[in-house]
Amino acid sequence: MDTYEKIIGLAKRRGFLWNSFELYGGTAGFYDYGPLGAMLKRRIEDIWREMYVIEEGFYEIETPTIGIEPIFVASGHTRGFSDPMVVCCGCDSAFRADHLIDGIVETPDALPAPEIKRLIDEHGIKCPQCGKTGTFGEVSSFNLMFRTAIGPGTERVGYLRPETAQGMFINFEHLFRFYREKLPFGVTQIGKSYRNEISPRQGVIRLREFTQAEAEIFINPRDKTHPKFSAVGDTILRLYPASQQEGGSGAGVVGGTGGADGGITEIAVRDAVNQGIIAHEFIAYHLVLTNLFLERVGIDPARLRFRQHQPDEMAHYAIDCWDAEVLTDRFGWVELVGIADRTDYDLTSHTTHSKHDLSVVLEYDTPEQVERIVVTPDMGVIGPRYKEKAGKVLAALKNLKEEDFSGDEIKVEVDCETIAIPRDLVEYKTIIEEVRGEKIVPHVIEPSFGIDRVIYAALEHSFAEEIVDCETRTVLRLPAEIAPVQVAVLPLLTRDELIEPALKIVQMCRRSGIFVSYDDGGTIGRRYRRNDEIGTPFSVTIDYDTLDDDTVTVRNRDSMAQIRVPVTKLVETIHEMLRDPTKFIIQSAQ
Amino acid sequence: MDTYEKIIGLAKRRGFLWNSFELYGGTAGFYDYGPLGAMLKRRIEDIWREMYVIEEGFYEIETPTIGIEPIFVASGHTRGFSDPMVVCCGCDSAFRADHLIDGIVETPDALPAPEIKRLIDEHGIKCPQCGKTGTFGEVSSFNLMFRTAIGPGTERVGYLRPETAQGMFINFEHLFRFYREKLPFGVTQIGKSYRNEISPRQGVIRLREFTQAEAEIFINPRDKTHPKFSAVGDTILRLYPASQQEGGSGAGVVGGTGGADGGITEIAVRDAVNQGIIAHEFIAYHLVLTNLFLERVGIDPARLRFRQHQPDEMAHYAIDCWDAEVLTDRFGWVELVGIADRTDYDLTSHTTHSKHDLSVVLEYDTPEQVERIVVTPDMGVIGPRYKEKAGKVLAALKNLKEEDFSGDEIKVEVDCETIAIPRDLVEYKTIIEEVRGEKIVPHVIEPSFGIDRVIYAALEHSFAEEIVDCETRTVLRLPAEIAPVQVAVLPLLTRDELIEPALKIVQMCRRSGIFVSYDDGGTIGRRYRRNDEIGTPFSVTIDYDTLDDDTVTVRNRDSMAQIRVPVTKLVETIHEMLRDPTKFIIQSAQ
Repeated sequence: MDTYEKIIGLAKRRGFLWNSFELYGGTAGFYDYGPLGAMLKRRIEDIWREMYVIEEGFYEIETPTIGIEPIFVASGHTRGFSDPMVVCCGCDSAFRADHLIDGIVETPDALPAPEIKRLIDEHGIKCPQCGKTGTFGEVSSFNLMFRTAIGPGTERVGYLRPETAQGMFINFEHLFRFYREKLPFGVTQIGKSYRNEISPRQGVIRLREFTQAEAEIFINPRDKTHPKFSAVGDTILRLYPASQQEGGSGAGVVGGTGGADGGITEIAVRDAVNQGIIAHEFIAYHLVLTNLFLERVGIDPARLRFRQHQPDEMAHYAIDCWDAEVLTDRFGWVELVGIADRTDYDLTSHTTHSKHDLSVVLEYDTPEQVERIVVTPDMGVIGPRYKEKAGKVLAALKNLKEEDFSGDEIKVEVDCETIAIPRDLVEYKTIIEEVRGEKIVPHVIEPSFGIDRVIYAALEHSFAEEIVDCETRTVLRLPAEIAPVQVAVLPLLTRDELIEPALKIVQMCRRSGIFVSYDDGGTIGRRYRRNDEIGTPFSVTIDYDTLDDDTVTVRNRDSMAQIRVPVTKLVETIHEMLRDPTKFIIQSAQ
Repeated sequence: MDTYEKIIGLAKRRGFLWNSFELYGGTAGFYDYGPLGAMLKRRIEDIWREMYVIEEGFYEIETPTIGIEPIFVASGHTRGFSDPMVVCCGCDSAFRADHLIDGIVETPDALPAPEIKRLIDEHGIKCPQCGKTGTFGEVSSFNLMFRTAIGPGTERVGYLRPETAQGMFINFEHLFRFYREKLPFGVTQIGKSYRNEISPRQGVIRLREFTQAEAEIFINPRDKTHPKFSAVGDTILRLYPASQQEGGSGAGVVGGTGGADGGITEIAVRDAVNQGIIAHEFIAYHLVLTNLFLERVGIDPARLRFRQHQPDEMAHYAIDCWDAEVLTDRFGWVELVGIADRTDYDLTSHTTHSKHDLSVVLEYDTPEQVERIVVTPDMGVIGPRYKEKAGKVLAALKNLKEEDFSGDEIKVEVDCETIAIPRDLVEYKTIIEEVRGEKIVPHVIEPSFGIDRVIYAALEHSFAEEIVDCETRTVLRLPAEIAPVQVAVLPLLTRDELIEPALKIVQMCRRSGIFVSYDDGGTIGRRYRRNDEIGTPFSVTIDYDTLDDDTVTVRNRDSMAQIRVPVTKLVETIHEMLRDPTKFIIQSAQ
């Protein structure tokens, strides 16, 4: 049994994750979060909000999961968001064509359709479903958006969004106004996205419906420094730059084992920017922020790296792109987060398709002085002389440049005819004009988090089995602030005189916002183990001493050490411990 | 301009609500939450969580928004979840057929399709789009679920869920096990649901994609008392019982003005249960909880009522159903919450369709003693005598009842043949058996909240215009705990010596989890008004006194009173004020 199997087993048994629609046979690519899983997810999302929404000041918005077609025509998803597919004529099953030749070539996902088909035939690939060979049809392209119709009939085509990002791009004008027309500003969204996989086979790692947390930060394309960079420049990250990768784009995608520890450089981000490894400060700052987030939610730093995209792997418009990847037991390195400089691609594309200019005027710190000439013709003469052509002559005169006034006559072109106008009928003067700014299309920096994968990785990296008292203890060493149940309240025995004060403590904790579970079934040792297995950081036990001196035992999940705490100080103590679990150890030692 | 228009105007201008896909012309029935709207929504959802998940202990789960077809066949949505539709052959527009005859009959939504068509023709109803008459085709039934396909081809039909509830019902077995096989227990879900309206025309009140917060509480059908009822029994609610409603089922649906204040009874819930107005304590308890929630998020108690469904309006399986309705300026009484006793309908229906028994054994408090006989045949004789039939004879004997042993012979039927067995070959004895419980299908109590409508109602009920200093002040008197921006930090003037300490205060507040905005543009009066308009409860002003004595001004949105607070105590003071804004007044008076 590999770690994945152990974790999924635990997750199903204890209410973290369930196969969706199991009652009706289930469908690949969908998972439910059970009571503990949903709580874990909520806490992880709340930490993300704390860091991105509150601390960075990137307001969150919420746009629909259904989008209308023009959005995805502009974003390119109606054309480019697809996978190569083959169908077996023997059993009618559909497969990712490139996955069938995994291992035969290094980068199957980079091959054109006919080439994939040729390799399938040449190597006599068997249908994974029915086992026949030679039954595969042509390789076609399958669009991965879920399609639906909005309103009756085929009135309006809708798609379930493949990323939350587009909802932010198409609101750019609203957002720019909300932020008082200043750059940079950031906006975030946490919500469902969809990818109608052909035949997903990687459990919770490859979902058809998943949760993204994305930030789109709109910046001045001429200034990619970051105001807070000096504060984080010393941070050491484990980078895996494109130049260090051998295998090309295949390395590092799910299942890729390329690299392991080879090619990873531990380097201060300031140096990485200075050496040109990371394109600029803004990307570097967000690599640091991502690193902070991932470590805070329980990702093991030793199994985390930032892998740079290869030039041929990156979207054609992107300048630089990094994936935060974690090492997993079954799937190798798995991407959790992508951090990209998307340039002005999205806004420019929406400008083109919506015919609505999304450029902005970026004000200079101090307005610039620009010389310009103003032409003033003598219309009292020009009007009568040129009659119906006078208007056009006037327009032509207004467009003249200073050098056009050098001779005795001024020549203008009107309706393919050159007209010479005496110099003295036209005056001009040079003025100095103030230009307050210039028109630009903002660039976008995008950190994009796959929340479901973060959750799985946090489970795998916090999972431990250890021998305690000759038995295997399974423990999830989740950080206290993400543990689904924060405190377990346990009467030592199932007796009314202990149950009653225990339930009072449950009430007291709940009122102060602590999420507690109550458990009075089985021996106390068994109940401790049950709570270790779901990662509950603290257990409070009510025993006969409680009735005498109004104190309870608080047990730490990781050290299994216990301290006595007066009931009157319990809530305060728990809040302190949740904020900083190391306090427990100090108190315990006193 | 009615209140709706004013609020939507404010909401669009200030970043609460935007029409979705506006850049591409928009589509009815979709709204975006802008930065302030999303924050407001989050806070309202968090209060719901605090009350239902933490305090009631109903764990939250998260199931996919896409569901497979068998779920909605079982739930009845593939058949029953539809509206009557007509299409105009003149302009191809589709309409809710029953809406076209609004006002002609009292309950158009209760009429069969041919009757609606007859009335449309008889009254010469014009097409609202092209204005022609006599162009409507037959009235058909339009299913309101968004349909999609999961995987390639038409492999698997999927629907976007019309309610979050089904995801909880189909997980009943997992949940029952999670709750250690005891009733009652509750489970909740907050998430997107979808309703593909034919032609929505009521702005944010009638959305095609919306957020629900639902609780499904599984209870013992034999016991609908509530353990906490005695604590809430005195609560006075504004009830509008079915018996008081004249107009039948039409009253009270969106747009209904039936009742206004007439027919509303203010009554203690205990009395309402005793008088048989509310079916039982469990429903009554949840009416109280709903009332608490709605008042907490800013619904005006004077514009809130609980309307009971008419017997012909309620789903056929429901025992009792109440809607929490609020009075709005444009739409009349609008339903925000439905609280229903759904009985065993859902679990029974999923049992039938999944062929998977969802009944549970409910343990008695004390096991019951039941008499039963145990038959022991003498196989040493019966075996050789009946040879190959011996097994069947044995099985038949084991099924005998006490009265079968009255004669000399015992007759059993084996393979359509009656066999007589001498009485002395069979012994039997009566034993007393313990029966630990009985099999039941739990009943479900469901409070179901439409979060988007709650948000709109909170905006409308907190909206006020008042004359201050000869100018109209627009203010959202949102409860402090739901206001999107909690504190505005404002340097008195745009000068570096004030900006710098102001930004330090911003940092300080953000680090302590307070959501602050910073604003240094325009006069201080104008900035106060801007914050009043979005409901910011407190503004902190940094002025030249701050530089001298390290104090700042804190201004209250509602009273416009100001107090001076030392910077060192600011965070603490704000946290106190957010918890209990009345403290401000006391402090201010000192």
